[in-house]
Amino acid sequence: MDLEGLEVEEREREDFAGYKLRPTLIVYARSEEDVVRVVKYARERRIPLVPWGAGTSLTGATSCEGCILLDLSKMDKILEINDVDWYVRVQPGVNLARLNEELERKGFFLPPDPASSFLCSVGGAVVEGSGGMRAVKYGSFKEWVLAVRVVLADGTAVKLGEPLRKNRAGYDLVHLMVGSEGTLGVLTEAWLRITPLPRKKVITVMAFLRDSEAAANVILGLRKARVLPEFSEYMDVDVIKALNRHLSAGLKESEGGVLLIAVEEDQLDDVLNVVKVNSQELVMAEGEEAEKLYSLRAQAAIALKAEAAGAKFLAEDVVVPVSKLPEAMMKLKQMETKYGVRMPVIAHIGDGNLHPNIMVREDASATQLFEEVARMAVEMGGSVTGEHGVGVQKVNVMREQVLRSNGERVLSLMLGIKRLFDPEGILNPGKYVEAAAASRRLT
Amino acid sequence: MDLEGLEVEEREREDFAGYKLRPTLIVYARSEEDVVRVVKYARERRIPLVPWGAGTSLTGATSCEGCILLDLSKMDKILEINDVDWYVRVQPGVNLARLNEELERKGFFLPPDPASSFLCSVGGAVVEGSGGMRAVKYGSFKEWVLAVRVVLADGTAVKLGEPLRKNRAGYDLVHLMVGSEGTLGVLTEAWLRITPLPRKKVITVMAFLRDSEAAANVILGLRKARVLPEFSEYMDVDVIKALNRHLSAGLKESEGGVLLIAVEEDQLDDVLNVVKVNSQELVMAEGEEAEKLYSLRAQAAIALKAEAAGAKFLAEDVVVPVSKLPEAMMKLKQMETKYGVRMPVIAHIGDGNLHPNIMVREDASATQLFEEVARMAVEMGGSVTGEHGVGVQKVNVMREQVLRSNGERVLSLMLGIKRLFDPEGILNPGKYVEAAAASRRLT
Repeated sequence: MDLEGLEVEEREREDFAGYKLRPTLIVYARSEEDVVRVVKYARERRIPLVPWGAGTSLTGATSCEGCILLDLSKMDKILEINDVDWYVRVQPGVNLARLNEELERKGFFLPPDPASSFLCSVGGAVVEGSGGMRAVKYGSFKEWVLAVRVVLADGTAVKLGEPLRKNRAGYDLVHLMVGSEGTLGVLTEAWLRITPLPRKKVITVMAFLRDSEAAANVILGLRKARVLPEFSEYMDVDVIKALNRHLSAGLKESEGGVLLIAVEEDQLDDVLNVVKVNSQELVMAEGEEAEKLYSLRAQAAIALKAEAAGAKFLAEDVVVPVSKLPEAMMKLKQMETKYGVRMPVIAHIGDGNLHPNIMVREDASATQLFEEVARMAVEMGGSVTGEHGVGVQKVNVMREQVLRSNGERVLSLMLGIKRLFDPEGILNPGKYVEAAAASRRLT
Repeated sequence: MDLEGLEVEEREREDFAGYKLRPTLIVYARSEEDVVRVVKYARERRIPLVPWGAGTSLTGATSCEGCILLDLSKMDKILEINDVDWYVRVQPGVNLARLNEELERKGFFLPPDPASSFLCSVGGAVVEGSGGMRAVKYGSFKEWVLAVRVVLADGTAVKLGEPLRKNRAGYDLVHLMVGSEGTLGVLTEAWLRITPLPRKKVITVMAFLRDSEAAANVILGLRKARVLPEFSEYMDVDVIKALNRHLSAGLKESEGGVLLIAVEEDQLDDVLNVVKVNSQELVMAEGEEAEKLYSLRAQAAIALKAEAAGAKFLAEDVVVPVSKLPEAMMKLKQMETKYGVRMPVIAHIGDGNLHPNIMVREDASATQLFEEVARMAVEMGGSVTGEHGVGVQKVNVMREQVLRSNGERVLSLMLGIKRLFDPEGILNPGKYVEAAAASRRLT
């Protein structure tokens, strides 16, 4: 097995989060056959193989030292949009925003929307089990992947599952691949469920909040009123300032930050009732105006990246039970003070998914703060990662969570699955589950 | 390890589908500790252990010859209804209809509704990955299980997952348990997602159809109009007759059968446009009247059971892509004629999930017909089971499907997972994946 005829490259790369990649070789795949060849090549030579979609992992999932980097960005075809069976079949390299544009033309959408839609690949979103801005109503990618094709570690290409919402023929291997972070197989195709665009008028409420407790109070109020929003996003005052500074957003810099809550018209009164008492100022938007607000929120991470001015910053991704939001938001403020570092918070607050961003170069105290935030989530019955995954960044805290909340046997079962799918340790080795089970500290 | 102090029984049982169970011993568990004791007891003595919820499996999932039958029906507590974090925590023996009554009192529901809700246990629905009448909009149990507690084959009790909609800390073992049919662990607790009851007015349209092509045409028409119904159910004329005969339903015995389609008010016109041209008669209902129709549909299997007059009948559970419905419905009619047996069809037709019921005692030709129906589904890119699972009934056809559609490696990976979780083959052995991989023919 050699790589003749395949497009290869020898150079270093850096991903969106600033992780350095030093592959032995970058190989571009244009078909599943190419993937099979590269996997077999890597396996014969026992070289770690790391799949790359668009490089937007925030946890170093594609980090690589002496690996073969398998670049799937040129496998970017939308193979089928089925408007009767309501699925789309795609190659992994398709850009997620582009996919949704195509779907919208036919009256459909694929709801989960990592704020990086305009950058990320569908394949990355699938294997990372990405979530994002509409998960509060529609769930994360976990709930939208029907079936996949993967190349296994021995070079066998297989299909897992069927493009059907109901299929009970065998154990659910599809959901093992969702969130496998390239460690169990290389994704070459996915069938994703699609659904009609909402028929009802959706209204976006932008609420500039009085104080730091307001955001959590609003979300609890909405839960009690049984409001099911399309999305409910939060940015604190530091994030607003970064948006104003770097993207000329022109948003009011209210002390308590800003909430963006979109709901169908018949739930609007309930939202306003809850929001009004907690806000300094309210704006309501629909149509294009609402889309502008949504895309501003989507660019918050870009604004923070600009704010970091080239320095790497640590993006947290913890989840706390919604009922624990008031306590969690308070504790984050306390930690910011205790460590004396800025930690602007972006949040999919409606589902308790918080992204405090530690705005310092990685060092001992940043790592300590990072772990303290994660530990808080675990102690509250939450999770150290809602959607970014584990990669190398969250190995220790994932280990802590699983040991504390699930038990050591569970970690060893996960490792058993890795060994079952990849006995020789070829696929993205030494990270995620494998690393967490080995208890090695990675940076 | 002994069973002192546990409630035990020595007798035979029959499940809802008529499978005979001849356990060495029936043990009633009242707590997770009891389950741990029984699993350890079985393991020490190498006796197969079969968990029992309410005995409503249709595939012989709890069949047992010389097993220890672990009866979980007395673990029937609703442990927590959390109306802020939107989950319910239950023991496996809770009746599903009872659970939904409790939830409704607080303004919530757990949408997936196997037509056997009034009989089945939540635990059974989870480990079978049950679907039912609202899956067309809300999906099956797969989409509603957040986390579980299970007792593993070595007697270790663990939690898998977290009661959070977003959690990416590790491989998804929760979805391995959903649909594991008691072969990977014994479920002792589940956290299930709940959602607010619909706010909008829902209207049920009952359409008595002109001819046998009408049902499929209506569903295709609804798909093209991008209508997303609450449910869309079908019963053919033989099912109507059984309902009239045994439950005095008083339904019109229209040649093309009857559709029950429920939609939010703003989609009603689209439904009527599609339905009218295909129907002899239309009835519209809401509120209590609609509930009566829904519960009539839920009792269709009971009516067929009465029709069978004590004889066992074969309940199919195939899925075809919605786009293949016209062809599938036609082929079912042809097979009925070819074999000269009655095969009344109940269907969650909106998601292509068909239940032709072969109304003869099991014999060679019934088995042949059963397999022909399943094969048709596989050839159409469908599945041999949408929601009933595999048990012993569908071992051969599941094997065919996986070999044909997924590949032999996939079957061996599934078997690898069984061995990983249950190396000594204690948990519900010799069925489902294990049997399909071994290619033994079970009856």
